[in-house]
Amino acid sequence: MSSVISKATLGRLPTYLEFLKRQEVEYISSTQIARALEWGEVMVRKDMNAVCGQGKPKVGYLRENLMTSILDTLGVDKNISAIMVGAGKLGTALMEYKGFSEYGVDIKAAFDNNPEKWNERFANGKRIYPIELLKEYCKENDIRIGIIAVPQSQAQIVCDEMIDCDIKAIWNLSAVTLDIPEGILVKNENLALSLSFLKTCMMRNEERNDF
Amino acid sequence: MSSVISKATLGRLPTYLEFLKRQEVEYISSTQIARALEWGEVMVRKDMNAVCGQGKPKVGYLRENLMTSILDTLGVDKNISAIMVGAGKLGTALMEYKGFSEYGVDIKAAFDNNPEKWNERFANGKRIYPIELLKEYCKENDIRIGIIAVPQSQAQIVCDEMIDCDIKAIWNLSAVTLDIPEGILVKNENLALSLSFLKTCMMRNEERNDF
Repeated sequence: MSSVISKATLGRLPTYLEFLKRQEVEYISSTQIARALEWGEVMVRKDMNAVCGQGKPKVGYLRENLMTSILDTLGVDKNISAIMVGAGKLGTALMEYKGFSEYGVDIKAAFDNNPEKWNERFANGKRIYPIELLKEYCKENDIRIGIIAVPQSQAQIVCDEMIDCDIKAIWNLSAVTLDIPEGILVKNENLALSLSFLKTCMMRNEERNDF
Repeated sequence: MSSVISKATLGRLPTYLEFLKRQEVEYISSTQIARALEWGEVMVRKDMNAVCGQGKPKVGYLRENLMTSILDTLGVDKNISAIMVGAGKLGTALMEYKGFSEYGVDIKAAFDNNPEKWNERFANGKRIYPIELLKEYCKENDIRIGIIAVPQSQAQIVCDEMIDCDIKAIWNLSAVTLDIPEGILVKNENLALSLSFLKTCMMRNEERNDF
């Protein structure tokens, strides 16, 4: 595994992984992957090369090996602690979601400014703390990732507080474009845009048959 | 707006849109966009061309125009009706999320197999029906999009029922790879993979400085 894998390549790895999971062949080439995903062949070849080295001439990569290499590159076996700010409906759903631990992320606690929530616990026993305790908690628990699940109007404030708590990576579910200093990573999760994409594809599908 | 925009291009439009929103320049070129996003220049130029025609020589595209073209291409001004199956925590969060209507998607109702939920309503007054009513409801309300927010073990069953109800596009939040017949669109939303990507980037960021 090369250590010079670009962020752009990393961002595509989940798509490769999902695609590879659905295949039933033993070997697969970067050309086949590129065609199926409608991505540039050069880009896919470079991505595969960065993650898994050269494929076997003519046949490409052993599909199982490629999947293992992608999982390794994604670092799913290394654990990291996260916190969430915002214990509303979406925050609660994510706090109770079991899928994150599979990828080595443990969302340890949530923070909210609503005092009524401070005595509540999530179904898995995890707690909701006052936002004032964020800094202390992050220091004590080596928190590296912050998840923003607050309303749009609060998102930037929460983001600034997270950075003040030495959080280096932010998962932003607020649909607000955050103002972030250099050196902080952000991943925006805009669910509305995602659903909108499906709608657009469907409408275009109906307009014509050659989609 | 060309009608031959590929699904791959459509999938990249939200990323372009998010990037363009954050810029403060009047004009931007496809080369600048490609470099900033770390995407291939040829691909970005083709995408821009498909959505907004040729840019102005040397300077590229008027940023505002490009954003409008992308929004038009995404069809955010056309309304479409959707339903959700699964009224658990995530389903409820999405039913009550206000952001979807901005992109022209109205999630009209939810369906669940738990009788205790049939008398409940979401905060916005929308209802939860027995899954047995799905087919009738979809016919009467011209439902075109189905959202799967059930546990993994139920996802394929729900997917098959949706297809039986003439639903043509499925937003799959279940983290299961669905078996889908030709002609049905699926968008998988794997939140765990998304958070995992952020974690991977962060760990690699810490390992070295030239990320």
